[in-house]
Amino acid sequence: MNVDVDLVRHANQAFYAAFEARDLEAMSGLWEHSDRVLCTHPGWATLRGWGQVAASFFALFQNDQHLQFILTNERAEVEGESAWVAIDENILSDSQPATTVAALNLFVRTPAGEWRMVAHHASTVTADPDLSDEGDDDQ
Amino acid sequence: MNVDVDLVRHANQAFYAAFEARDLEAMSGLWEHSDRVLCTHPGWATLRGWGQVAASFFALFQNDQHLQFILTNERAEVEGESAWVAIDENILSDSQPATTVAALNLFVRTPAGEWRMVAHHASTVTADPDLSDEGDDDQ
Repeated sequence: MNVDVDLVRHANQAFYAAFEARDLEAMSGLWEHSDRVLCTHPGWATLRGWGQVAASFFALFQNDQHLQFILTNERAEVEGESAWVAIDENILSDSQPATTVAALNLFVRTPAGEWRMVAHHASTVTADPDLSDEGDDDQ
Repeated sequence: MNVDVDLVRHANQAFYAAFEARDLEAMSGLWEHSDRVLCTHPGWATLRGWGQVAASFFALFQNDQHLQFILTNERAEVEGESAWVAIDENILSDSQPATTVAALNLFVRTPAGEWRMVAHHASTVTADPDLSDEGDDDQ
C-alpha cells in the first residue's frame, strides 16, 4: 500500500514535470489512452477521451510561455486499482501574476503495476470564496 | 459491472437531489466520513476531511437561494472498488444568470456494497477557454 502511494506520488510529480518541460511524449506516456479519460483545465469545459486531452496539451505546449509549478498540500490515496491525488498548483509564469490552482488527479493501475492518469481536474482558487452557491465563483 | 455503474449513477444523482433540497442529512449519508474526503466548490480552495466538507454544505444550505441542477454529459466509470463520474451541472437560480459547472465526482464502494462519495471537484466553465496556460481562466 505504501509502495503504491509512493508510485502514485511519483506519477503525479511526473505529470507536472512533463507540463513544465512541455514534453508531449512524457505527457502522453503518463496517461491511459482510452475514451474514458477526462481533463478539465481551469475555466475549460471537460475534455473527454485521449484524443481531446492530447490535443489540449499539444495546443498548450505550442505556447512559448514558461510555467513553473510549485506543488503544495499533496495528498495521495490508493483504493485498490485506483488512486487520487489532491494538490495545489502554485503557478509562476513569465507574464502573469502567480495563481493557485486546486487540482484533483486520478490514476488507475495497469496489470503491469504502472499508474496511468485517467483524470485531471484543475480550477483557479479565488481569494475570497463566495458562500452563496455552487455555481458562483467570485472572480 | 453494469449494476455498479447504475449504482454509482444513482449515488451521483442523489448528491444533486440532496444539494437541490438543501438536505444536510441526505448529503451527509452520501459521503464517506473520513479525513481523506475532498470537496472543491467553484473558485474555492479544496476542503479536506469530512468536518470541513460538512461545514461547507451547512453554510451553503443556510442560504435561502433555490438552485436547480440540470445535469448533462454524465459519464460514470467503475474501476474495482472505486468509481468516478464526470458531469456538467447547468445551474439555474433565482438571482443569477445560468452557469455551467464542470464536475468530477469520486466514489468508493463500502464492504456492504454501497457507494460513498470521497471527492467532489466543481469549476465554472467560461465561454471562451484561454489556451495560454494552465493557471489562467478567462473570467
